[in-house]
Amino acid sequence: MSAYPSFREHIAQINDLLNVFNILNWDSHTQMPHGGAETRGHQLATIVQLAQERFASDTTARLLDAVEAEVEDDDYYSYRRREVQNTRWAYDIARRIPAALMSKIVGLRPTAEQAWVDAKKHNDFTRFAPYLTQAFDYQKQLAEAIGYVDHPYDALLLRYEPEMNVERLRHLFDIMKGTLLPLLQNIVAKGDVVRSDFLYGDFDEAKQREFALGVAQQFGYDLNRGRLDVSAHPFEVSFTRNDVRITTRYQRNYLPGALFGVLHEAGHALYEQGASIELTRTALTTDFLGNYAVAGVSFGAHESQSRLWENQVGRSRAFWQLHFPRLQSHFASQLAGVDAESFYRAVNRVRPSFIRVEADEMTYNFHIMLRVEIEIGLLDGSIKVSDLPELWRAKMQEYLGVTPPTDTLGVLQDIHWAMASIGSFCTYTVGNVMSGQWMAAARREVDGLDTALANGHYAPLLGWLTDNIYRHARAFSPNELLIRATGEPLNPDAYLGYLVEKYTDIYK
Amino acid sequence: MSAYPSFREHIAQINDLLNVFNILNWDSHTQMPHGGAETRGHQLATIVQLAQERFASDTTARLLDAVEAEVEDDDYYSYRRREVQNTRWAYDIARRIPAALMSKIVGLRPTAEQAWVDAKKHNDFTRFAPYLTQAFDYQKQLAEAIGYVDHPYDALLLRYEPEMNVERLRHLFDIMKGTLLPLLQNIVAKGDVVRSDFLYGDFDEAKQREFALGVAQQFGYDLNRGRLDVSAHPFEVSFTRNDVRITTRYQRNYLPGALFGVLHEAGHALYEQGASIELTRTALTTDFLGNYAVAGVSFGAHESQSRLWENQVGRSRAFWQLHFPRLQSHFASQLAGVDAESFYRAVNRVRPSFIRVEADEMTYNFHIMLRVEIEIGLLDGSIKVSDLPELWRAKMQEYLGVTPPTDTLGVLQDIHWAMASIGSFCTYTVGNVMSGQWMAAARREVDGLDTALANGHYAPLLGWLTDNIYRHARAFSPNELLIRATGEPLNPDAYLGYLVEKYTDIYK
Repeated sequence: MSAYPSFREHIAQINDLLNVFNILNWDSHTQMPHGGAETRGHQLATIVQLAQERFASDTTARLLDAVEAEVEDDDYYSYRRREVQNTRWAYDIARRIPAALMSKIVGLRPTAEQAWVDAKKHNDFTRFAPYLTQAFDYQKQLAEAIGYVDHPYDALLLRYEPEMNVERLRHLFDIMKGTLLPLLQNIVAKGDVVRSDFLYGDFDEAKQREFALGVAQQFGYDLNRGRLDVSAHPFEVSFTRNDVRITTRYQRNYLPGALFGVLHEAGHALYEQGASIELTRTALTTDFLGNYAVAGVSFGAHESQSRLWENQVGRSRAFWQLHFPRLQSHFASQLAGVDAESFYRAVNRVRPSFIRVEADEMTYNFHIMLRVEIEIGLLDGSIKVSDLPELWRAKMQEYLGVTPPTDTLGVLQDIHWAMASIGSFCTYTVGNVMSGQWMAAARREVDGLDTALANGHYAPLLGWLTDNIYRHARAFSPNELLIRATGEPLNPDAYLGYLVEKYTDIYK
Repeated sequence: MSAYPSFREHIAQINDLLNVFNILNWDSHTQMPHGGAETRGHQLATIVQLAQERFASDTTARLLDAVEAEVEDDDYYSYRRREVQNTRWAYDIARRIPAALMSKIVGLRPTAEQAWVDAKKHNDFTRFAPYLTQAFDYQKQLAEAIGYVDHPYDALLLRYEPEMNVERLRHLFDIMKGTLLPLLQNIVAKGDVVRSDFLYGDFDEAKQREFALGVAQQFGYDLNRGRLDVSAHPFEVSFTRNDVRITTRYQRNYLPGALFGVLHEAGHALYEQGASIELTRTALTTDFLGNYAVAGVSFGAHESQSRLWENQVGRSRAFWQLHFPRLQSHFASQLAGVDAESFYRAVNRVRPSFIRVEADEMTYNFHIMLRVEIEIGLLDGSIKVSDLPELWRAKMQEYLGVTPPTDTLGVLQDIHWAMASIGSFCTYTVGNVMSGQWMAAARREVDGLDTALANGHYAPLLGWLTDNIYRHARAFSPNELLIRATGEPLNPDAYLGYLVEKYTDIYK
């Protein structure tokens, strides 16, 4: 008798628990009244502990032993074999992680997040510092428990970008700095030649929502299996492919914020909604190490899709030539006298600034590099928490030539560390790099892709991405997907080429 | 070393799981996109299975054995002793219930609900009858598994109203009929003398919400630990005392629906929010047999609070003398020319009708009695499923003097039987009865209570209820609470006195 059905049901229940964890988190950030935070922390801790216990159990070991024998003759790329293989890989690592440590990490989150909100509101880093110290201390313990060859940070990267490590990151950053630092300096030297004043004004939130969500639906985001809400920090989260939710934050006085935010999260959502239905509740929609139910194979692969839809599609000249008239009809007085080309240039204006989530495509990667360099230093002890505000200012000056006047606009701007999400920042830049590779390959392989996009026909692009990436969920590693779809592993050439071409055109 | 901390942590995790179950259900009914239903079903099933497994485990038995020895010298009314005692009581019952039977009961629900929807839509009882027969057959098996002394229905009542049994219910109903049947006949004989046309019109939903939620907050409903949403069927649900949510359904063309609906659910919410903080995540906020995280000690006790705030407070003359001018300012044209007294009389208009959920305070109890009498008869075999439609009409005629023209408006109106929720109907009337006892006792014990209420000062009443009921959560049985707070166990005299006085005044 095959052990596979029992294996699959065992994994399905773990997947259920991790989806439940996602629901609790979504609720915490969009619906929960303030007073619910403390007991929600307990509920989150219990769910993740149960998922962890079940996954790291002897039952998993016994089922794995049995099904490994059954799938050894399956095709190397078959989903069934990958289910077993991925589960084994994660199981061997998970067995090294103490359940009590994971409970502590998850349990710290609600209070750490509230301390972060408070510290940010009052521009007082000291209110958040003790939680940050505690969070990194837990992460050090986690790295030691997992084990690593060269750097403790490598152990943390396993959860987010399993094919990445400190050495490869430093190499990637060096190549990118080599192209982007001089390019940025040239752009800045041109002066502020791109007009963008019309992006600032008074923009009705309901209209912002209607336009942005409308575009997301044109991309293919299915509201029968999704919804859009408001949260302080925008995110996408799935409770299986059948319920994939996104959030945004409306800025009444700045049009591009929610607009591109929604397109970004919709890109994430398209990945999740596109997973093959047969992979629902399986190991291939479960991130066992991250204790997360998700179809995307890595954070970088996920980010490559949000970036692709937001930037490669949503910030393209063709997109705004098509959509600007409709946007203008929503905001007739604010956008009076503006044309599509001006709007295109405005939303691609390069300006070194303080806030990562508001950064343009050009400067964005420097925001990431500084964070990753700080995380690596905090983890190996070469940087102290108390040094952070000053170090942040120094690196901002070095990379972008600007110094944030407050910590609220500096080291306190991101929720990630409060969420114990340490090791994930690099995946934004990895995602940017991948997005360049996907788009270049799609252009090669899909006949008339640019004509279709110019006409608002997004199905050919969505179809190619679904076929090559989304439907496989976590069956293939990022580099496997890249090699199968583009012929080569992670490589920044296409992305850097895209940036150079785009900004040379805009800034001459 | 004491086993109590381990016992408490074990129970706390079960409580977390049941709170999570509540959250998933709340989301299903208020937020979830349509497509999410199927996988949400798996998630709910997994959570409840884990909670049941953990509760009915040998670990629970071992911890119970250890802590029982530790608490035997505690005060008989101490919370710690009650935690252990309640857990033992539920554990011994839970162990008697075969998992296979529970699976059958749960498994029947989706098809039974479908058949009920179909039967109700087509006014064809025969489409539902086989499922009803099967449902009651399973409930008979459940009653036999649980065990009982006098009547199998007594075993089913344990989950909802543990101190109630068939004998006591029949006695209670006899007393109530003795007073209410002649009172109702007198009222009906007066003719339709209470004007209520102004309750029907076009009422802006946002204004309905603002007024009703405003009153709920004046009662003491804390929005820092709660929120109000929309759902098809209104309900209250708690995720610990710190997050207690209510829902309503706005009827644009009928003002009292959402208004009293919100006050009703707010009454439930006040009970949950009022539980002592030290009882959070303990056995005293866990309904192990119902697989439900809840502070209220029984369904009837819970209902006594929703009824108290909705009816004893919210449908009182003093309430409308105070609040009507503000309601009128919200709906100036619709309520033009209406005064507080007319509005008070309108929302207390008695009219025998077919549908339970639309019934007034006076006729409501008869809707309950007929259902409970039918459930008892179906369970002991003295009533056959095939006799139900006719029996329903006969009892409606006997109690209310009206005969529903269709089964859709008769025996098919409630979802309860399709949901295998058998034994809970009586708790609505038990709640009414208790509400009369609480209110009478509060009037005796709180100086100037009626003056305070007339001035919109609800804190004295809320304080008395919190002190005598809410804070104890499930520590004391309904009759213990009643005896401690009012000097006697369940007794309909106060409630019947309230109805007689109120309706004699309105109908002279």
